[in-house]
Amino acid sequence: MTPTSSAAGEFRGAEVIEDYIARFSNWGRWGAGDQRGAMNHVGPEQVAAAAQLVQQGRTISMSLPYDLHGPQSGGFRANPLNMMTATGTDHLAGAQDPLPAGFGPAKGFGFADDVLVMPNQAGTQWDALSHIFWHGKLYNGFDAGTVTSAGAGRCGIENYRQDFVMRGVLLDVARHLGRDCLEPGYAISPDDLDATAEAQGVEIRRGDAVIVRTGLLEARRGAWGDYAGGPAPGLSLHVAPWLHEHDVAAVASDTWGCEVRPNEIDLFQPLHVVALVHMGIPFGEIWDLQAIGEDCAADGVYEFLLSAAPLPITGGAGSPVNALAIK
Amino acid sequence: MTPTSSAAGEFRGAEVIEDYIARFSNWGRWGAGDQRGAMNHVGPEQVAAAAQLVQQGRTISMSLPYDLHGPQSGGFRANPLNMMTATGTDHLAGAQDPLPAGFGPAKGFGFADDVLVMPNQAGTQWDALSHIFWHGKLYNGFDAGTVTSAGAGRCGIENYRQDFVMRGVLLDVARHLGRDCLEPGYAISPDDLDATAEAQGVEIRRGDAVIVRTGLLEARRGAWGDYAGGPAPGLSLHVAPWLHEHDVAAVASDTWGCEVRPNEIDLFQPLHVVALVHMGIPFGEIWDLQAIGEDCAADGVYEFLLSAAPLPITGGAGSPVNALAIK
Amino acid sequence: MTPTSSAAGEFRGAEVIEDYIARFSNWGRWGAGDQRGAMNHVGPEQVAAAAQLVQQGRTISMSLPYDLHGPQSGGFRANPLNMMTATGTDHLAGAQDPLPAGFGPAKGFGFADDVLVMPNQAGTQWDALSHIFWHGKLYNGFDAGTVTSAGAGRCGIENYRQDFVMRGVLLDVARHLGRDCLEPGYAISPDDLDATAEAQGVEIRRGDAVIVRTGLLEARRGAWGDYAGGPAPGLSLHVAPWLHEHDVAAVASDTWGCEVRPNEIDLFQPLHVVALVHMGIPFGEIWDLQAIGEDCAADGVYEFLLSAAPLPITGGAGSPVNALAIK
Amino acid sequence: MTPTSSAAGEFRGAEVIEDYIARFSNWGRWGAGDQRGAMNHVGPEQVAAAAQLVQQGRTISMSLPYDLHGPQSGGFRANPLNMMTATGTDHLAGAQDPLPAGFGPAKGFGFADDVLVMPNQAGTQWDALSHIFWHGKLYNGFDAGTVTSAGAGRCGIENYRQDFVMRGVLLDVARHLGRDCLEPGYAISPDDLDATAEAQGVEIRRGDAVIVRTGLLEARRGAWGDYAGGPAPGLSLHVAPWLHEHDVAAVASDTWGCEVRPNEIDLFQPLHVVALVHMGIPFGEIWDLQAIGEDCAADGVYEFLLSAAPLPITGGAGSPVNALAIK
Repeated sequence: MTPTSSAAGEFRGAEVIEDYIARFSNWGRWGAGDQRGAMNHVGPEQVAAAAQLVQQGRTISMSLPYDLHGPQSGGFRANPLNMMTATGTDHLAGAQDPLPAGFGPAKGFGFADDVLVMPNQAGTQWDALSHIFWHGKLYNGFDAGTVTSAGAGRCGIENYRQDFVMRGVLLDVARHLGRDCLEPGYAISPDDLDATAEAQGVEIRRGDAVIVRTGLLEARRGAWGDYAGGPAPGLSLHVAPWLHEHDVAAVASDTWGCEVRPNEIDLFQPLHVVALVHMGIPFGEIWDLQAIGEDCAADGVYEFLLSAAPLPITGGAGSPVNALAIK
Repeated sequence: MTPTSSAAGEFRGAEVIEDYIARFSNWGRWGAGDQRGAMNHVGPEQVAAAAQLVQQGRTISMSLPYDLHGPQSGGFRANPLNMMTATGTDHLAGAQDPLPAGFGPAKGFGFADDVLVMPNQAGTQWDALSHIFWHGKLYNGFDAGTVTSAGAGRCGIENYRQDFVMRGVLLDVARHLGRDCLEPGYAISPDDLDATAEAQGVEIRRGDAVIVRTGLLEARRGAWGDYAGGPAPGLSLHVAPWLHEHDVAAVASDTWGCEVRPNEIDLFQPLHVVALVHMGIPFGEIWDLQAIGEDCAADGVYEFLLSAAPLPITGGAGSPVNALAIK
Repeated sequence: MTPTSSAAGEFRGAEVIEDYIARFSNWGRWGAGDQRGAMNHVGPEQVAAAAQLVQQGRTISMSLPYDLHGPQSGGFRANPLNMMTATGTDHLAGAQDPLPAGFGPAKGFGFADDVLVMPNQAGTQWDALSHIFWHGKLYNGFDAGTVTSAGAGRCGIENYRQDFVMRGVLLDVARHLGRDCLEPGYAISPDDLDATAEAQGVEIRRGDAVIVRTGLLEARRGAWGDYAGGPAPGLSLHVAPWLHEHDVAAVASDTWGCEVRPNEIDLFQPLHVVALVHMGIPFGEIWDLQAIGEDCAADGVYEFLLSAAPLPITGGAGSPVNALAIK
Repeated sequence: MTPTSSAAGEFRGAEVIEDYIARFSNWGRWGAGDQRGAMNHVGPEQVAAAAQLVQQGRTISMSLPYDLHGPQSGGFRANPLNMMTATGTDHLAGAQDPLPAGFGPAKGFGFADDVLVMPNQAGTQWDALSHIFWHGKLYNGFDAGTVTSAGAGRCGIENYRQDFVMRGVLLDVARHLGRDCLEPGYAISPDDLDATAEAQGVEIRRGDAVIVRTGLLEARRGAWGDYAGGPAPGLSLHVAPWLHEHDVAAVASDTWGCEVRPNEIDLFQPLHVVALVHMGIPFGEIWDLQAIGEDCAADGVYEFLLSAAPLPITGGAGSPVNALAIK
């Protein structure tokens, strides 16, 4: 494999990628063995401060339901399928008497059970740092060969099992710009982020999760079309310096890939390459930001305790997540 | 189907069940359409107060990793299986160039992806109120026939999508009794709970999640044997009055079923029938309480912000969960 | 549940269904415990005779590949998903050395492995006799309550584990009528079947599998649209007497449901009710009949040894199948 | 990667492997693009002749049922799990009225449906030629890098979609040696095969599937223990010359890996390396040979038409199969 530095000049925009990587990479910053990346910005001080944001005692979920009505249209990722292996109708029909597994006569007792089959990134999700590679490496220079059919040997999502409890800030760019939904192809610039934050009266601090609302999920809900994989508004590649400057720990948005699509340079998802692979920033995608957007607009409070720990799936390249904003 | 009241006298202990149901049932208490049960004890006041428990900025996960090394031994429920549909080794071998789905030449970009297959109750989990039936009914009198192969039409786990942010209290009964692990068959009594709470210097309040440590998971970790489905220490049926008296909102433990096994009367999981079906208390099972047990023993603080929202699986009879204690 | 006889007059066409059921039902014909239905028409004599049809030593598969490019469009049934749990790229990257499961150093050895997730009826398939119910009963009067979340307690597909080795006859109705594809909504009549058979110079005998080509699969291949679940040409309800008269043992076609859609009376899939539920005739669906159609047109031989045993999935309501015509 | 020839001298027995590979490899024999290996021994003449073996019109399945009672004990491969997505109990409870997918009022109609989740090699199965690698190559010298998370790009099981219709010969070595079950570790020699064939009065011909009975599956049925992955009787590495001499097209047995375990040299599954990777012989494993063993002993006929086509799973490294002996 060619090393990272070999990409320069290979395609339109390669020099930008190389420059951002050179300037903002966090490889080695938190030790050669680190697997948590920018989450290292979040220490006990940040967690405790974030908890103090809870004043009203209200929780708002930012997650889509997991079911067959999700945004996937077949192909690489299917929508979540939850299958019942025991039901109330079985109970009613007497089919659970005796109970299975040698538990004896039912005597009125019945139960339901189920099995979930879902691509971890089919719905609301976190990308693990093992989700993306660049020239044979993942975050912190780990070899891509550590991510095998047996799972991610490095930077699996389980490394975040005690993370994602942090200050969350909603930047409702769509609402700030007076739009129901930003146009697919609209690249959200650092200026957009700053202007939105200023208008909202909120500032970004070290260790924050920055949650960017484009309105796309709401615009497509229930008639998804090419929502998953198609053109989308999203973060410009050029927010990379801004993410670095603010010591952002995590990014999330209401589109399938956080980044503007089509991309601004001739590379697929270049912000993932810079921010996820090199800065170690996990991306949250397909977040449902309708309710939180309305809630923040109503009370004017755009910061909250985010509690969004992933499932500790050993070696997972991502995880479904029920991301809660707690105010 | 026979109505609930018909069970009296049918088996040894039936009259106890009937008595407890008669005295403690919450059916109708929060309205005929309520699907959240005892979680109604948790209001904004409780959530805000729980957040104030966060002083040190530390999170402790109470969830087992989800992988093939879990406690299931095959049969009805298998261990979680996470399968990679794209890997770093593919990327290294050049098999991701061009990228799939028409995304064009890789130019150094690579990715991993995965699909999770797991019984919702294979590992650390919440039972939904649709998980258990009693004589054709689930919580609040809903008909068991609403829980079909298409999922739970009533009391699916998605009803808790904004819940389980609350005060959590660990009652470390094993440690209080000076045991690494309570014996299978040991029935934890209300007196045990009270004595443990008193020794720990903590009180139970309305809307709490009561988390009971028996030590069994740690004793069996990695050599599970009959951990899943076998004899276990656990809550006595006779904690039902105690749960009622304290307005407990949720219960969790480090065994497969929370209740003592074998059961104390001739009915399978009678506390589920009283507390889950009739009081509307969700049960958390297969929680890994080793780290939280050690943490609480070390700092003497047995209360915390619990953040343990389930995945919003539409119609789910349960959900995997990464339950966090935040101190 | 209402008994079968109560349906008369309930909807347009109910009397036809009742009449056909009354005249053609095979319930009890092969014993009260029979679970193989019309397959009882196939005895050793038929199997041996069918084998004698093999003259050229050529096999033609009538099955679609099982993969994500199949006809399902998401929703109730997804396309087959085969996931690799070990790959050659892992082997190349050295990730299989040592081998898993304690098998020691690889020394050059490597392997691939995979897990299949598929709805049994997502692609080319057999319906089991437990697939369809009529007023609470399945074939032979078995109670529908025997088909639970644990599988089909009666008439599961495993009952056919040694069946579907028989004479197969292709009736290429589309080609006979000079059409690439019959129109959706076209009801294939007994006269169509007879005329096709006569033109082809083949007769239907007791115990045959009658395989009817409409051309629809070929017309939709790769751009499936509403192939699965949409309007389709297919067998008229009124072939029921013809199926009875010819002692047909199995029916298959190149559409998702064998029957003409929309149906001819105000009942969903009425031929399934008469022929599958009452006559005990299994239906093969989504068969790929392009190659066999061309083969038979080329050599003028429309009969062959059909070898199409299902997977013996215990309690399965159906099975994928690689149906081979052997000439 | 080191080339194949580099293995010599690396471990005890390496020179045997190298010798057998040098003498018996079929790489290139049927063209550089061939993906069917020794199946090329089976031509129309062989198929037609095999069909003539059908005299009695009887079929015997050599496949285990696919269900949770199979031989897998968790871990890498789980037992098959068939999940119902629609049931008769739902129908009885009225939960299928109206029908799903817009199909309207049920009017008495009901249905069952199911989804199968199974490792392709969990039960009775065929290995594809893409299942095993040797020093970075699979059969015919294809690069192991063609077998990715997206499936086997070369030698996927779909290449056999019209194969495995052939003469099958049972060599009942256990019965011939007067044993219920050969001992784990017993290496079946060419002499054993010849003596068994002679005693049975059957000869091996070009293009045969040789099916070897050890009795192990029957001995372990229902109390599987370490059946899957543990010590086993099976073919000696030194049957390789015999397989070559007889132009055998396929091999199958009633153990998990066909080969004797522990292996005779210091290499895992060396006969797979020689016979599958280099000779292109597919292996059938976990076949249930009890019934066919009894049948052949009863009528003295040890040859039959084998019909055992795999599911055409695109890129599959193997396939479940319902292997039928037809006499």
